[in-house]
Amino acid sequence: MVEELYLNINPLQTGGRTPADTRKAIFSWVDGYAVCDACKGSLRTTDKPPIRQFIEDVSAFLGMDNALLTNGAREAKEAVIHSLVSRDDWMVTDGNAHYSTLVAAERNGVPVIRTETSGHPTYEVTPAMFEEAIEEGTRAHGRPPALAVVTHVDGNYGNVVDAKAIASVCHDHGVPVLLNAAYSAGRMPVSGHELGVDFIACSAHKSWAIGGGNAGLLAVNEEYRDRIIRFSKEYPVKPIEILGCSTRGSEVVALISSFPYVTERVKHWDREVAHARSVVSRLMDAGGFSLLGTSPKEHDIIALETPAYDEIASHHKKRGYFLAKELKSRGIVGIKPGRTKHFKFSTFGFTDEQVDYIVESFLEIKDKYM
Amino acid sequence: MVEELYLNINPLQTGGRTPADTRKAIFSWVDGYAVCDACKGSLRTTDKPPIRQFIEDVSAFLGMDNALLTNGAREAKEAVIHSLVSRDDWMVTDGNAHYSTLVAAERNGVPVIRTETSGHPTYEVTPAMFEEAIEEGTRAHGRPPALAVVTHVDGNYGNVVDAKAIASVCHDHGVPVLLNAAYSAGRMPVSGHELGVDFIACSAHKSWAIGGGNAGLLAVNEEYRDRIIRFSKEYPVKPIEILGCSTRGSEVVALISSFPYVTERVKHWDREVAHARSVVSRLMDAGGFSLLGTSPKEHDIIALETPAYDEIASHHKKRGYFLAKELKSRGIVGIKPGRTKHFKFSTFGFTDEQVDYIVESFLEIKDKYM
Repeated sequence: MVEELYLNINPLQTGGRTPADTRKAIFSWVDGYAVCDACKGSLRTTDKPPIRQFIEDVSAFLGMDNALLTNGAREAKEAVIHSLVSRDDWMVTDGNAHYSTLVAAERNGVPVIRTETSGHPTYEVTPAMFEEAIEEGTRAHGRPPALAVVTHVDGNYGNVVDAKAIASVCHDHGVPVLLNAAYSAGRMPVSGHELGVDFIACSAHKSWAIGGGNAGLLAVNEEYRDRIIRFSKEYPVKPIEILGCSTRGSEVVALISSFPYVTERVKHWDREVAHARSVVSRLMDAGGFSLLGTSPKEHDIIALETPAYDEIASHHKKRGYFLAKELKSRGIVGIKPGRTKHFKFSTFGFTDEQVDYIVESFLEIKDKYM
Repeated sequence: MVEELYLNINPLQTGGRTPADTRKAIFSWVDGYAVCDACKGSLRTTDKPPIRQFIEDVSAFLGMDNALLTNGAREAKEAVIHSLVSRDDWMVTDGNAHYSTLVAAERNGVPVIRTETSGHPTYEVTPAMFEEAIEEGTRAHGRPPALAVVTHVDGNYGNVVDAKAIASVCHDHGVPVLLNAAYSAGRMPVSGHELGVDFIACSAHKSWAIGGGNAGLLAVNEEYRDRIIRFSKEYPVKPIEILGCSTRGSEVVALISSFPYVTERVKHWDREVAHARSVVSRLMDAGGFSLLGTSPKEHDIIALETPAYDEIASHHKKRGYFLAKELKSRGIVGIKPGRTKHFKFSTFGFTDEQVDYIVESFLEIKDKYM
């Protein structure tokens, strides 16, 4: 596959880049339901491979009390919505929520009220905005929301919200808090206990350095454990929300295999933030670029407005496609071809040299035509 | 992984054994959300890799009109139940239904009535049994079931039901039919059009020669397409039942890569049936074994009662564990260790020589101790 020879700066890919040992593990466990050979009746209690231990370790790593393996972050969110929120209830989420939060609510027939954001160019979501949405919705619906889904880091701007303060606002109104940590947990340190959240939805695929299939995690605090991790009446080892077993292939083995790598890499989050800040600072200094999202950067996802490239596109014979082509000729992929007004990318996991090279390539392409 | 050196006869593994080219495809597409690089907004309309085309091809292969990629067969079943059946309704399924059919109904708060089976030793499910369950349930609930889930081939005995006749009975009562083809489609020829079913749930992981994560397929006929494949109001490219995108990793690539192999292998289903019949015939002739499930075999899953092994276990110092140990010393794994009264296995995909070797090993172990 051609992408193997390139630096892929698509934010969907950088946190899921899979270390060599995990690739080998996937390769070995790829047949059928390979993890089921030593099944004791339930994915979560399997000891060979050590899934039971992994669930304990990952709960502790996230500062939570228990966890379910899920097919992805969206399925984790849907499990909480399905467990806690009825059609007569409503829920609140932020104005930067991922579409899958809204679709998960829609599947359950649950109305959603979204907070404001600060709008262009920072798109910030504050605790006060959550407070306002909860109070406004409570007046409209006659009762507080049954759930708040808080996007810890949104995928468009890489803004990191003050989850602790938002959770505190929600709890003051008696609202349980689900943290959508698809772009945080597995990349940066996340402690549910410190943030005071009730649930954490993780995208293993996106941010836990695994491939080999879709996988997610739903971490749950003790207070809500029995409402989320409830078991079938007739099959009492089978958790209802994940239909018994969710992510039941080689990706569980991949998760276990990548976990030491993930726990180590989150310790170096400051380096990732430094990389993003250095990229932004150099591009802003050069002119022709402006930052979308809050500043200074607190995350590896960088969204830019790029009037410099848009100007080039207006008289380049390849139009907007020149940028993706120029990047590709420099060994860089992951920007949507044709897009030059604004785009996003991620520097997660790249070395100092690779980050330098990415910035220099952006600048060189600009200088070549201007 | 040690299992790579063995013949694994666990029915969960044999249909998911992954060809070399597919392993390579998984290896190349294993990072992050690798299939999303050329996304046009929805998994089902992606052309690079050719997912749109694959969905068309697979719908045709299954004799159906449309399809959704799902995380597995259980999620496919849950999607149909969620779309068609309300808590005030009820549904019918067979007495050999997989637990996940029942848990999927339970997640939706839907009462289920199960048909009888013929019981020990054949455990047959007939069209008349479906008729009886539908009529009995209709009297009890005051209306016919909103859905029938028919287990095409059950995982315990490998019985193949007369799906066409059962579908006809269900339709006579106005009941749509979901065929749980987890152990049939991908192994043997299955045509929804010929069988007259409305939905087919497939386990890609179990029976479509892929690994690399969990994956399934839900094929839907034209009549029900808009009730199952309905889209988000706010995000009109995102199918609600799969929360936008379901099985979104390397396993889609694996599915596409394995598909020519799968379409070819189902043409040789008669060979698989012949293998199973020859195994049963040789074991029955030897004595000390008896068949569970209907006879003659129509499927590769073979369930046996094994009084011969149980007799050995009663005076062997390793008790029931002797059998798994003896098999492993002969390079065969996949029987639950400790089990000697009865067990199931599958000869799917093995060569004539391997099938012979498996039978000879079973007989040799018996003769060694008796």
